[in-house]
Amino acid sequence: MNNSVGIVKTEIAEFDTELQLESGRLLGPLSIAYETYGTLNADKSNVILVTHAWTGDAHAAGRHTEQDRKPGWWDDMIGPGKVLDTERFFVLCSNVIGSCKGSTGPTSLNPRTGKPYNLSFPVIMVRDMVRAQKLLLDRLGIDSLLTVIGGSMGAMQAVEWSILYPEMVRSIIPIAGTGRTSPMAISLNALARQAIFNDPMWKKGNYKPEHPPADGFALARAVGHISFLSDASMHLKFSRRFSARDGMFDFFGQFEVERYLEYNGGSFVGRFDTNAFLYLAKALDLYDVAWNFDGLEDALSRLNCPSLWFAFTSDWLYTPDQTEEVVEVLKSLDKPASYHLIDSDYGHDSFLVEPDKFTPYVVEFLNQLA
Amino acid sequence: MNNSVGIVKTEIAEFDTELQLESGRLLGPLSIAYETYGTLNADKSNVILVTHAWTGDAHAAGRHTEQDRKPGWWDDMIGPGKVLDTERFFVLCSNVIGSCKGSTGPTSLNPRTGKPYNLSFPVIMVRDMVRAQKLLLDRLGIDSLLTVIGGSMGAMQAVEWSILYPEMVRSIIPIAGTGRTSPMAISLNALARQAIFNDPMWKKGNYKPEHPPADGFALARAVGHISFLSDASMHLKFSRRFSARDGMFDFFGQFEVERYLEYNGGSFVGRFDTNAFLYLAKALDLYDVAWNFDGLEDALSRLNCPSLWFAFTSDWLYTPDQTEEVVEVLKSLDKPASYHLIDSDYGHDSFLVEPDKFTPYVVEFLNQLA
Repeated sequence: MNNSVGIVKTEIAEFDTELQLESGRLLGPLSIAYETYGTLNADKSNVILVTHAWTGDAHAAGRHTEQDRKPGWWDDMIGPGKVLDTERFFVLCSNVIGSCKGSTGPTSLNPRTGKPYNLSFPVIMVRDMVRAQKLLLDRLGIDSLLTVIGGSMGAMQAVEWSILYPEMVRSIIPIAGTGRTSPMAISLNALARQAIFNDPMWKKGNYKPEHPPADGFALARAVGHISFLSDASMHLKFSRRFSARDGMFDFFGQFEVERYLEYNGGSFVGRFDTNAFLYLAKALDLYDVAWNFDGLEDALSRLNCPSLWFAFTSDWLYTPDQTEEVVEVLKSLDKPASYHLIDSDYGHDSFLVEPDKFTPYVVEFLNQLA
Repeated sequence: MNNSVGIVKTEIAEFDTELQLESGRLLGPLSIAYETYGTLNADKSNVILVTHAWTGDAHAAGRHTEQDRKPGWWDDMIGPGKVLDTERFFVLCSNVIGSCKGSTGPTSLNPRTGKPYNLSFPVIMVRDMVRAQKLLLDRLGIDSLLTVIGGSMGAMQAVEWSILYPEMVRSIIPIAGTGRTSPMAISLNALARQAIFNDPMWKKGNYKPEHPPADGFALARAVGHISFLSDASMHLKFSRRFSARDGMFDFFGQFEVERYLEYNGGSFVGRFDTNAFLYLAKALDLYDVAWNFDGLEDALSRLNCPSLWFAFTSDWLYTPDQTEEVVEVLKSLDKPASYHLIDSDYGHDSFLVEPDKFTPYVVEFLNQLA
């Protein structure tokens, strides 16, 4: 347990309130799952909010039990002496609404019917996720965030924080993000959606949790998985090796990369809810920082803090030019924005696979702030 | 009908023979569908072989009837006064084996059972397609090809021609090809396969032609479609526009790009056979010019003619570096190879969408040969 935050527990905060969503619909009551690491200081000025990606959760660091085989999803980053040093910072991570990891989402009970929402759950945007996180911070009495840091959908949340609550946010660190989801990324999500819709077990979202649309959902996950990788990372890991089990001229024979995608898709089915996956895909598709503002400049003019941005050369899902577009607008607005294009072969996943390539910049940035 | 080859007819050549495939299996008897345009000259020295891509066919130019709404798939290129000038050249295009457009494939009758092959059809490689084309040329008494030209899977066939039959081939023009299919391309085909396998209507390939696995096949086509486009071309065509029919906050609401993919996938189902699509995907995956040789150098050392290669900047399926790898080996072997990287936003499809960007080089190349 060296450098680990140790045994942690996911807390659930309950809110007997209705959140007005971007769609105009109301959502409530709300549950928000969260974890914290480190100690809140006396003036509550050492809070770092970590925001998770699509299928992430509140469990960013440590282990839930001594027997846990895997720690939280960003355990490399969070702990005593680590980049997000829990001896200095109070680190908070919460599960987004729309997900299935403890916060209110399509698997939650609809208070009007007493049954799971399923497709009666409202379409949400990333902005709605951030408004829900704000309720949690209010509850915890936190009114200042040293930084908001996250990758992918986590980067989107960081940016939304800075434009919705500029008075609270002292910096943001968006990693492998985008200012607006591209038609290519939307198209890939469309494939994932259709894979699920095609599965008769999906039943328009009314499957029983114990009988999910496993085949369609596994395929949907494989679509996402490919978009997180790169041709270079696949070459490194699999090249064109044929599966040892199969004959090359067998109709159902598989290359190693194909078997890997199938295996990972299948194992994901038991770990995430299909409808939650669909709602979060929708939130990703709808993401546009300029939404409800008069364009990108108007939106970003609200940001009032230093920002540190990272993109990765081999990321073909949220390509570097998408981050660069945002950073250029910030610079044209004389906002203090730093940008690093990190050379990595690991595609969109680089931020999880090769943290050492960008964390020195994060440490330096935090030292200048704190 | 200006500059058109006019009304044409697909011919079928029958071969009462068995072709030995790379897998060791035998395939026969064989039908090969083909079309020709222009006139074979006295010494049969003006033949251009056009090789088609994955879902292409023998109908490369002209129309089958006066009422045809669409001409052949490369009508822009083939005709009197066009790049492949039918007043000078005798242009031949044949449907590959494994397809469903007149040549022997999984929809053909298995002579041993009297029923369609379906999955009893053998796995074929691009090299097998070329050996079958050779039978056709022998039948037509043609023993010299001025050039073999094609894009994508057509480029693979051109290369195979040059190394299998160097004594017949006076030049090749591979466009948007690769020396070996990358794990990324294999992964995308794996998604397409799984989409079909997941469809209960597929029935392990034993669907009735009138009841194809339409949902799975449409999704499979959409996977392919995305891989032929690029983020830039999608931005040009669709940007992030939401379908006018849908509300942005409707769960089933679609962006225009999503609706387009769905529509095109659906309309493809009636135009191609699912099993043939799968067999050709397999042939693409297995493609490696070095197959059964001692590496790329050994394979390419057999090529004995000038070659003209094109790749496109935005092609992320068969990326330019894949063509460059082959061209570099040819140059290291002192083979006369010319390569042009064409700046285009249209992804893998650039060779069909923006022919004007590369055809001047083709005209010049052919003039130097002929």
